[in-house]
Amino acid sequence: MPSAVAHGMLAGLSEIADIGRDRRAGGYSRHLWEPAEHELRAWFAERAARLGLDVEVDRNGNTWAWWGAPGPDAVVIGSHLDSVPGGGAYDGPLGVVSALEAVARLQAAGFVPGRPCAVLVFAEEEGSRFGVACLGSRLLSGAIDADKARSLTDRAGITFAEAAVTAGIDPAHLGRDQESLDRIGLFLELHVEQGRGLIDLGEPLAVASSILAHGRWRMSFTGQGNHAGATLMSDRSDPMVAAARAIVDVQEAALASPGSRATVGRIEALPGGTNVIPSAVHAWLDARAETDDQVHAVVADISARVQNQHAGCSATVVEESWTSTVTFDPDLAARLALALGGIPALPTGAGHDAGVLAATVPTAMLFVRNPTGISHSPEEFATLDDCLAGVEALDTLLRELL
Amino acid sequence: MPSAVAHGMLAGLSEIADIGRDRRAGGYSRHLWEPAEHELRAWFAERAARLGLDVEVDRNGNTWAWWGAPGPDAVVIGSHLDSVPGGGAYDGPLGVVSALEAVARLQAAGFVPGRPCAVLVFAEEEGSRFGVACLGSRLLSGAIDADKARSLTDRAGITFAEAAVTAGIDPAHLGRDQESLDRIGLFLELHVEQGRGLIDLGEPLAVASSILAHGRWRMSFTGQGNHAGATLMSDRSDPMVAAARAIVDVQEAALASPGSRATVGRIEALPGGTNVIPSAVHAWLDARAETDDQVHAVVADISARVQNQHAGCSATVVEESWTSTVTFDPDLAARLALALGGIPALPTGAGHDAGVLAATVPTAMLFVRNPTGISHSPEEFATLDDCLAGVEALDTLLRELL
Repeated sequence: MPSAVAHGMLAGLSEIADIGRDRRAGGYSRHLWEPAEHELRAWFAERAARLGLDVEVDRNGNTWAWWGAPGPDAVVIGSHLDSVPGGGAYDGPLGVVSALEAVARLQAAGFVPGRPCAVLVFAEEEGSRFGVACLGSRLLSGAIDADKARSLTDRAGITFAEAAVTAGIDPAHLGRDQESLDRIGLFLELHVEQGRGLIDLGEPLAVASSILAHGRWRMSFTGQGNHAGATLMSDRSDPMVAAARAIVDVQEAALASPGSRATVGRIEALPGGTNVIPSAVHAWLDARAETDDQVHAVVADISARVQNQHAGCSATVVEESWTSTVTFDPDLAARLALALGGIPALPTGAGHDAGVLAATVPTAMLFVRNPTGISHSPEEFATLDDCLAGVEALDTLLRELL
Repeated sequence: MPSAVAHGMLAGLSEIADIGRDRRAGGYSRHLWEPAEHELRAWFAERAARLGLDVEVDRNGNTWAWWGAPGPDAVVIGSHLDSVPGGGAYDGPLGVVSALEAVARLQAAGFVPGRPCAVLVFAEEEGSRFGVACLGSRLLSGAIDADKARSLTDRAGITFAEAAVTAGIDPAHLGRDQESLDRIGLFLELHVEQGRGLIDLGEPLAVASSILAHGRWRMSFTGQGNHAGATLMSDRSDPMVAAARAIVDVQEAALASPGSRATVGRIEALPGGTNVIPSAVHAWLDARAETDDQVHAVVADISARVQNQHAGCSATVVEESWTSTVTFDPDLAARLALALGGIPALPTGAGHDAGVLAATVPTAMLFVRNPTGISHSPEEFATLDDCLAGVEALDTLLRELL
């Protein structure tokens, strides 16, 4: 990947361009409370301090940088700094960097806010370490039960509660944080677009109209571990074959339900030796569609097909997370779009912390064009001009809102 | 898993029953030059020293324990201590423990060998760390090119050469070791059976007649990494779907060629996020059959099918290791079987260091019944009575051979 400077990135993105690079997968792997993510938190705290903002980590691990006294009725802008494994440079950080940049510009222009303002960095937006996306915003807003969150485990078997302790968070205090919620008058998240909507429209910016319903399920196949050479084909209960058939079914079920998307991006064979018939295979299903009912119908179709995959194996499909269709407040979206000269409104298939918060506080999103249309990949991109248009838009909106 | 003592294991197996347990996969994960394997090496050295044997590690990482002066024309007995991930307690260690036990019995009986004798522990028999099975015996006998071995990598990207340095092995001296080979007059490996042959025969012991031809191939599928929610089904190049179809093909190709076995036990998605369409998926193929030609025909069938799996992805199938059909010296096998009261001869689908050495020195194998018929799994087993019959057989053969 060429350097950030060569790409003409926003200064803040350049500063973090070397943190958490993944040489194997390409792009970035920045996972909650791992060294790269701690480095990003330190960078954010230092950057915010340079602007005179007061940094505090809430009891769910989200980081707030307050411009002036904390809430109530604050305008809160932000996004996240964590990534999927091998993710792009813009997904999350663009929103954080643009928010800091907008505050810096307003300060440089001598603007004095008439209402509290904060830049907010959510924890574990991608769910890459503990499996549940938007975990920080779900905990803040009470959209996930604290006990369920505490018991989530990473790939090494460390629970979220155990990891929290090492990061200085008391797991007993995880969960809905009314005090922090009461400070939010409006939450606004700027994010790189993750599809091709703005390419097709030929526009640099849009407001968000809605987010597809989406969820994650773990499909588990259990057979009989055995020797790959000494076991006749007819004597096998091979869960890898059952999982493979299920993955083909996942694609077929999504194709049979127009507009839906279903993906298996993560798979794990136990024990995972080349000369070993696995005893179990886990494959994670990500399914999305416009309506809750459509997603549930697709997953029901997949579950029915999976139960029919004998290969002498048993199969289970267990929900790990769920988010209903989000429709952003249309009046607020229209007001912001108008303030920005009548930019378009776009739906998205990607989940966001803004989608979680929208159930609790007035919330809006801004998308910045991604000329590759690719995300969750090193190919994700945004031009410097479009990024600057995003900062300009935040500047305009903050002047109107604050 | 109940304790070794409760299982009525040989004493040596009991001593190592807590080393390298894998709580996640079950059974044992004992991989070359990792802490558990170093602990097993230390145990072996201590056990051998207690018998007055002289322990030396050869330049390929194999460990020899000499009873009396080293070679020439020595009778060498042994097996391996490493395991597949989540493997059983008997695969490898039974042969090592039984060899030590047989020497101890002969010593206790005042037996004085008339020819040199050694217990040999091969390194990386399973290929679980560096991908090539029987790596220690292949290096010793020159069956693998030293340059190829040096450049093998483990899952963390560490090369075999780099790992060798940390284990005190000079990678410049890896490769065919004529001095060590010249010391071997005959190699005899006792091993737990990994199939159901002795169950069907109702016998505790057999000599080996042959080993199936077998090899490993890496099947790689490359597509376009992207966002699982924002990417329409019609816009995808999803290598997970291509890999899944290939795994179904692997099973179908093996079923279409009676007697052959083809397995995918290890799979890796890059980057491996639940909400990420992978950019690449690697799946490792283990294929075996009676003749070299049959294996090559099965793999050619699989390769042809895999090339037809579009899903918008490219596919490659690359050989990582190969072992032709091994036929053990029939005269030697018959002589040993007769000395043991006319025990039967059995073929096996499992590879062994003895199979590699058979091309270079007179070699034979003894199998001990496995009442579950299951191997490479925690369910692998041998009764104490059958294990003792194996030790007794080694005792008998050493008295005849030494």
